[in-house]
Amino acid sequence: MRAPRPIVSLLSDFGTRDTYVGQMKAVLLGRCPSLQLVDLTHEVPAQAVLVGALALADAAPAFPPGTIHLAVVDPGVGMDRRAVALLAPGATFVGPDNGLLWPAFLAALDGARGRAVELGIPAGASATFHGRDVFAPAAAHLALGKPAAALGAPVPLEALSHLELPLPRATAAGLAGQVLAVDRFGNCLTSLTAADLAALGNPGGLRALAAGRDLGPPRRTYGEVPPGEALALIGSSGRLEIAVRNGSAAARLGLAPGDPIELVRRAG
Amino acid sequence: MRAPRPIVSLLSDFGTRDTYVGQMKAVLLGRCPSLQLVDLTHEVPAQAVLVGALALADAAPAFPPGTIHLAVVDPGVGMDRRAVALLAPGATFVGPDNGLLWPAFLAALDGARGRAVELGIPAGASATFHGRDVFAPAAAHLALGKPAAALGAPVPLEALSHLELPLPRATAAGLAGQVLAVDRFGNCLTSLTAADLAALGNPGGLRALAAGRDLGPPRRTYGEVPPGEALALIGSSGRLEIAVRNGSAAARLGLAPGDPIELVRRAG
Amino acid sequence: MRAPRPIVSLLSDFGTRDTYVGQMKAVLLGRCPSLQLVDLTHEVPAQAVLVGALALADAAPAFPPGTIHLAVVDPGVGMDRRAVALLAPGATFVGPDNGLLWPAFLAALDGARGRAVELGIPAGASATFHGRDVFAPAAAHLALGKPAAALGAPVPLEALSHLELPLPRATAAGLAGQVLAVDRFGNCLTSLTAADLAALGNPGGLRALAAGRDLGPPRRTYGEVPPGEALALIGSSGRLEIAVRNGSAAARLGLAPGDPIELVRRAG
Repeated sequence: MRAPRPIVSLLSDFGTRDTYVGQMKAVLLGRCPSLQLVDLTHEVPAQAVLVGALALADAAPAFPPGTIHLAVVDPGVGMDRRAVALLAPGATFVGPDNGLLWPAFLAALDGARGRAVELGIPAGASATFHGRDVFAPAAAHLALGKPAAALGAPVPLEALSHLELPLPRATAAGLAGQVLAVDRFGNCLTSLTAADLAALGNPGGLRALAAGRDLGPPRRTYGEVPPGEALALIGSSGRLEIAVRNGSAAARLGLAPGDPIELVRRAG
Repeated sequence: MRAPRPIVSLLSDFGTRDTYVGQMKAVLLGRCPSLQLVDLTHEVPAQAVLVGALALADAAPAFPPGTIHLAVVDPGVGMDRRAVALLAPGATFVGPDNGLLWPAFLAALDGARGRAVELGIPAGASATFHGRDVFAPAAAHLALGKPAAALGAPVPLEALSHLELPLPRATAAGLAGQVLAVDRFGNCLTSLTAADLAALGNPGGLRALAAGRDLGPPRRTYGEVPPGEALALIGSSGRLEIAVRNGSAAARLGLAPGDPIELVRRAG
Repeated sequence: MRAPRPIVSLLSDFGTRDTYVGQMKAVLLGRCPSLQLVDLTHEVPAQAVLVGALALADAAPAFPPGTIHLAVVDPGVGMDRRAVALLAPGATFVGPDNGLLWPAFLAALDGARGRAVELGIPAGASATFHGRDVFAPAAAHLALGKPAAALGAPVPLEALSHLELPLPRATAAGLAGQVLAVDRFGNCLTSLTAADLAALGNPGGLRALAAGRDLGPPRRTYGEVPPGEALALIGSSGRLEIAVRNGSAAARLGLAPGDPIELVRRAG
């Protein structure tokens, strides 16, 4: 079935200074003029597959069923990595098979069955810009409601690159995780999630530790601490975030991706 | 009445590196697939309500009647500030009630009667991302032509946050104002407007003073001075601008927001 | 004839921090609500006509027939340069007549006949923002399928500004060119094209010289050299590029626009 105005989201490390993103959109609209295009971000650091994978996994759930996510962070373009389309019941992901799509795809599956096809490389495709010449045509094909099978051969899901986001580790006192990313405001997104927090029991009985500081129990809003003070809270993506009210936690606490973060049960 | 392709403009301090803007668009299109989305800017400095208010007020008049402006610069998210929709005859503004929307709303009213509703917070809304969970659903609701009254209770306009852009002050010799913002080219937008200038009489009889310099009478185009030279002119937003032809007035004259600027009548 | 959802591409040096691009889009959609808008880039360095011309020429061929390209890098706005629409069989270009549109227009003509009209300046147009007040209304007019002749008087193509991208120069050993631009990844786009390369004969019999180094024969993909190593290849725009696999050629080799690059026949 074909949506009247199918949505294609775009994520890449292309930046917005060059015209690469515009060229992908030109191909998409040339083949499927009714598309709604939504930029997720094009400022993934060059070739940073993990950063892109995290951004895609956190953003994809906000889209309506039927959305096609075209993502390109692709250090192996033109080499032996597969080009793929991954089909979950409510969302489709098109891009390189290097782990970029995997966490978002896995979350979209949510236990259901999905499938993957390896995209054929069209004759005349540039060897360095599969975003325009391979992924955009495939995404447009799917947006037109045409069968994925026409794009290439099936690939077993087990054969795909399985990038996993770092998982929390149980400690004597609670759970240890790490900072995964820092947003524009300096908020630090961590590998600990609302589900992890719930598994630890009453949030009021927990303390968040980061950068050698005790930030107290996870809060619900910035307003629970005075301006300029650090706090932990569950952010809009369902991840524990370290933040500073009206300020930058990354700057104030010196936090960066990879830095440890811990949730511990409060001593009785 | 519902436009066939309603326009929603977006302004925020979210930046374009993270996926926050994309997530807002996902919600908007999920609820109103025919929308035309237009980014005004997402590079308002973090939590700079006045900068955002000025940008929105200067840009909104370019949009056709019926446009919905969704703006989020929201240091108080999840705290006690209201979430609102402000309805003028030709434009609607959705965002936090912290003054961000006020100057644009006031200009859109232009003396006519408007009204405001306080947006209810949907169950399950994130306490830190009302852009996605409160404002986007409200904007989509209005874009679908549904009644504002269904979004929440009316608020008297007098009860709203009334951020006012700094007004010019009369001096013995003319009018004193200030630099409000610096654009990408280094042009300095000031608090003096075309209307202020008209009230002072014949522009050829005026002199603009900035950064300790006499820039002569307000000009009509950059071409009236040699390349590299400073000038004052009425810019595209109807404000007096200090500019340098083919250069940056901010860099060349050392001007920044808050710096004084004066229009004086030329000594006979 | 009028496309059901005409595409207008946008290229400028306006940046995305100010609302200038949003204001152009407001005017476009106000007059032609069914438009599909595609940003090519708004980060052309301020007033860098040549950089903008190259970006437009490289990106325009990716768009479907009927696309209207609105481009504004316009140091002479409000002065005596013409405002124009240039009509090729498959694409239309709207912007200032300062050379910005010329290379893309010439490529779109590809030997066919085209024509140009000088755009009239609407009453009340700002003297400093023709993007919003002159070019956007003209592009919307054309997108609506209305006749170009209604926009203004014809201009002979010979009378237009003819910016030419630097052409390669034959040397004793092969061809000499230069770096034209550096993209976000540090890839260096040169003035040598796939056609130049073909004219030199068997690519395996050539060597690319840049920054005092012999980069060997032009390759097909990054994967033909080890990570971190420099190479030359035909990039996605059909130009010879100097690249570093998984790195920045500009940083690694110290290359910048204007630097010489040479293709020489391999000594037997």
